[in-house]
Amino acid sequence: MSNRRTVTVVVDAQGGDRAPSEILSGVVLALKADPDLQVIVTGEADIVGPFAAGHDRVEGFPTTQVIEMDEHPANAVRSKKDSSIVVGCRLVKEGRADAFFSAGSTGGAMAAATLVMGRIKGVARPAIATVVPTAGPPAVMLDVGANADCKPEHLLQFAHMGSAYATVVLDVAEPRIALLNIGEEPSKGSVLAQESHALMVEALPGFIGNIEGRDVLAGVTDVIVTDGFTGNVSLKLLEGTSKILLGQVKDAMTSSAINTMAAAVLKPSLSRLKERLDPDTYGGAPLLGVAGVCIIGHGSSNARAVANAVRVAAQAVRGDLTERIAAAVAPN
Amino acid sequence: MSNRRTVTVVVDAQGGDRAPSEILSGVVLALKADPDLQVIVTGEADIVGPFAAGHDRVEGFPTTQVIEMDEHPANAVRSKKDSSIVVGCRLVKEGRADAFFSAGSTGGAMAAATLVMGRIKGVARPAIATVVPTAGPPAVMLDVGANADCKPEHLLQFAHMGSAYATVVLDVAEPRIALLNIGEEPSKGSVLAQESHALMVEALPGFIGNIEGRDVLAGVTDVIVTDGFTGNVSLKLLEGTSKILLGQVKDAMTSSAINTMAAAVLKPSLSRLKERLDPDTYGGAPLLGVAGVCIIGHGSSNARAVANAVRVAAQAVRGDLTERIAAAVAPN
Repeated sequence: MSNRRTVTVVVDAQGGDRAPSEILSGVVLALKADPDLQVIVTGEADIVGPFAAGHDRVEGFPTTQVIEMDEHPANAVRSKKDSSIVVGCRLVKEGRADAFFSAGSTGGAMAAATLVMGRIKGVARPAIATVVPTAGPPAVMLDVGANADCKPEHLLQFAHMGSAYATVVLDVAEPRIALLNIGEEPSKGSVLAQESHALMVEALPGFIGNIEGRDVLAGVTDVIVTDGFTGNVSLKLLEGTSKILLGQVKDAMTSSAINTMAAAVLKPSLSRLKERLDPDTYGGAPLLGVAGVCIIGHGSSNARAVANAVRVAAQAVRGDLTERIAAAVAPN
Repeated sequence: MSNRRTVTVVVDAQGGDRAPSEILSGVVLALKADPDLQVIVTGEADIVGPFAAGHDRVEGFPTTQVIEMDEHPANAVRSKKDSSIVVGCRLVKEGRADAFFSAGSTGGAMAAATLVMGRIKGVARPAIATVVPTAGPPAVMLDVGANADCKPEHLLQFAHMGSAYATVVLDVAEPRIALLNIGEEPSKGSVLAQESHALMVEALPGFIGNIEGRDVLAGVTDVIVTDGFTGNVSLKLLEGTSKILLGQVKDAMTSSAINTMAAAVLKPSLSRLKERLDPDTYGGAPLLGVAGVCIIGHGSSNARAVANAVRVAAQAVRGDLTERIAAAVAPN
């Protein structure tokens, strides 16, 4: 018997390019790793029924609709009340589950979580966070895409939310928080960055000041705060750069027979590096600020990514993520 | 005898961490590579006098002041009229030279070029551009730091200026121009990005639409337009990521004796990759929109970086960069 709290995670069986097979395989992996985990899978009866019948600690919750990647998120959430995403969020709202995971439409999952679960009291704008690998310990970066235009008070809330996530998921007792800017001095940057800096100096005990783009991967902070435009460009640039650089390293390694032989020797070390840089290693991206744990996976999530995301979701529930955010943003 | 036009470039002998030795070595390399190049070096009499005496096609122009890295740029430009940077820009303004290069204070060089040379008629905001290596041909990205807060009409001018630079320096007859955004659809992104997209669709024949962060290095466009905040974060993130990733590849390669032996075989291929990714390969960063060619180098510029920047400066002059920008932004 484990002393961990039992947690129920709803998994959208129909979200993602590789649904349902990789999603369900991921659920199996997650259940194996955590004896106190329960899973509810939402999706077509033909999919979730047989799966639930074949696995302990799994409940199937049949739904009849799917929100597609190209639909207008808010409209889809309003019109498709029996979709795997909307029903998943409703199960959390109703207290029948503790957390929700989907690798489907990011916009759809965000809209459903915000509209169905609602925001935590005091939160102006939920934000998407992501864990980035660095030369040191991993860091939480947010917002990476929920809010293209932000105000300083939004960034201050992102800081609180990211700090709670770093504590619960990265095990950092007192997270260091930095503002992404284009210079280290407080007077540098856009009006938004300057005003946010001033606000954070006042209100955030863990605030270490501005960092620049070159410091994002340097391991100098636990939380990186930015607006959703800069954060989204940065995250995708990071992903693109890693992919292209490692691809070019690979090309260099296979450009001749002798290079290929030499590369074979190095393969295990480089595979470990690749795994460290793989976003799947760190689970999905949490939507922070909604009244319930909600983790959104890459559309390309494989079983391992799903299992990691479910693990992170359970960790967030057991670490009282939602309650910590509520306490941090409560008007005092 | 060459049929290239003779070009005179002023070089700030006292700008940069490795000044004056690496700067002057760079000038020597540049002169060797281009028989129609003349150079004026500004800096202390003790430095520029002996150097000019020892080299053909070099004139020394003694100055008595230096703008330091930590000075307030505009104040320094106003108070240090006999600094190597301000005098360098004045020589261009007065028509005694065609272009100016400094690896000193970026802010100082920007302020001096803007205040002393002045802006091209019609240009609202000069912008700093940089050439980024990609999986395909290199691309010009701007603004990478001159303007943290921008309006759509500024971004449209950046597009015109970047396009002229791509034509002259990257030899692209009809550059493709993309807007850096957080989604491909015109409706995506910040208010600035949405309004800029609408403006560019109307006014830019070479406009190919939005690209995302992951496309920056993909080689899908010749010009990448963004505001100076996003551009600066992106550029520094790129530099930081390349450095850390290649460092980790190196670590993986030296983690055991056999790995080290295998890595030795791969070294030439990886060195070529490293050179391709090295910003020094593409010369310095041009300040576009000022009435004269102005190239700003990294503070850490070595001789090779200086030589490349001087070569690019001469190429910009011979390709009538300033005139092309003036024609593109002229109110019609």
